[in-house]
Amino acid sequence: MTLSYAQRAANHPSAVARKLLELMEAKRTNLCASVDLTRTADVLDLVDKVGPNICLVKTHMDIVDDFTYERSILPLLKLAKKHNFMIFEDRKFADIGNTVKLQYKGGVYKVAQWADITNAHSVTGEGVVAGLKQAAQETTSQPRGLLMLAELSSKGSLAHGDYTRATVEIAKTDKEFVIGFIAQNSMGGSDEGFDWLILTPGVGLDDKGDSLGQQYRTVDDVISTGTDIIIVGRGLFGKGRDPVEQSRRYRNAGWNAYLKRVQQ
Amino acid sequence: MTLSYAQRAANHPSAVARKLLELMEAKRTNLCASVDLTRTADVLDLVDKVGPNICLVKTHMDIVDDFTYERSILPLLKLAKKHNFMIFEDRKFADIGNTVKLQYKGGVYKVAQWADITNAHSVTGEGVVAGLKQAAQETTSQPRGLLMLAELSSKGSLAHGDYTRATVEIAKTDKEFVIGFIAQNSMGGSDEGFDWLILTPGVGLDDKGDSLGQQYRTVDDVISTGTDIIIVGRGLFGKGRDPVEQSRRYRNAGWNAYLKRVQQ
Repeated sequence: MTLSYAQRAANHPSAVARKLLELMEAKRTNLCASVDLTRTADVLDLVDKVGPNICLVKTHMDIVDDFTYERSILPLLKLAKKHNFMIFEDRKFADIGNTVKLQYKGGVYKVAQWADITNAHSVTGEGVVAGLKQAAQETTSQPRGLLMLAELSSKGSLAHGDYTRATVEIAKTDKEFVIGFIAQNSMGGSDEGFDWLILTPGVGLDDKGDSLGQQYRTVDDVISTGTDIIIVGRGLFGKGRDPVEQSRRYRNAGWNAYLKRVQQ
Repeated sequence: MTLSYAQRAANHPSAVARKLLELMEAKRTNLCASVDLTRTADVLDLVDKVGPNICLVKTHMDIVDDFTYERSILPLLKLAKKHNFMIFEDRKFADIGNTVKLQYKGGVYKVAQWADITNAHSVTGEGVVAGLKQAAQETTSQPRGLLMLAELSSKGSLAHGDYTRATVEIAKTDKEFVIGFIAQNSMGGSDEGFDWLILTPGVGLDDKGDSLGQQYRTVDDVISTGTDIIIVGRGLFGKGRDPVEQSRRYRNAGWNAYLKRVQQ
């Protein structure tokens, strides 16, 4: 937890993780913007605004009503080049191996073709990792990485205790493809040679939660318990907020908390 | 478990469940065909063949590469009328309430518009039920029902024990919208006035499993432990199999096992 992003980049077994850690160090940001908007134009507009301040954009392309590969993905890939960030489709795959394989590579969204990173629940067992990895390998020669959902920020979540521990065991089945976790805390692993990235949603400087069970923690709090990348959504673009200003604010908060951690 | 489908239909609080139970009784089938195909023409062709023998078709529209609402959904709805079956999109929603709401009603697939039934994991907590219900209510006046994933058929699944019990508790938060479970056994509840439908995947008369962790049980076995509807996929249309013949075979096996159970 006290190693710098650059030090970790130098030794990481995953090409996706290396690229991301290098980018974070170079750009001095550990902010992931969560873009939960339902129109392509709004998604692209927001991403263009926050792009200079983020290392990663987290998309939910499956809520975009006017999605097409040409209109939604190609411009997003251009913005990723323009601003130097990576793309994480928050698909939360949650089926058996054979099905997630088809979902990841196919359908309308073809996530494996364009998202550097995606994520999966562990509830169906370790077949989910093998199925997704097969899909990535059959789709592209570009590096792809998977985050397992180990802990959640929502009220009454069942992802804790034995569930979280079992998720970590499933992650261990593939050191190269599984790059880390969606979690609220460090998941350990360094004693066994793992260097998992911890990405944490439910981070907000001003909000407490919503009416559908989302709950928030502060930037300093999550970074101090092991978070490498803070995921911020409504904090950036909720009602009355200026995404440029807020992304700068969260970027600074995240980076300062990181510096504090590595300088300990 | 020993009540007939007709008796249960008469008293069920959910309009979707009533319709489904009545249909099962009238058509004498508890077979749900799982159609995991990646081309619209193949999906529709298979559904037309098995249609006379099923009460429900389970779709994965998110693996259909040439999906459009006009080409894929409208003809499916016509087939549902022609053969009198209902539609269950096996989306396995697994995000926080606010996100599943947008995923269910929107995106390219707009599941709430056309699927009588969908399903969700409980891992994010009870907000998932509220979020999906809001989406259904904002989308359509047609009845909609939700199945919670309580137990899974895949190897190393984490959905057992405390996880399953917590899932049942979440299901109790909405008696009308949550109509039952994806499970391998009865989930009880009748002492508290619940009459949950149990739908069971991983049912096969000839197979043991696949290389990505799927595992199979027989028809008699699952019906004897509480299954109301058997979900059969590769058993119907796997290599060298005639879907018409196999759907008749599974329908008979499922119905005979049901008769045996209610006559006890």
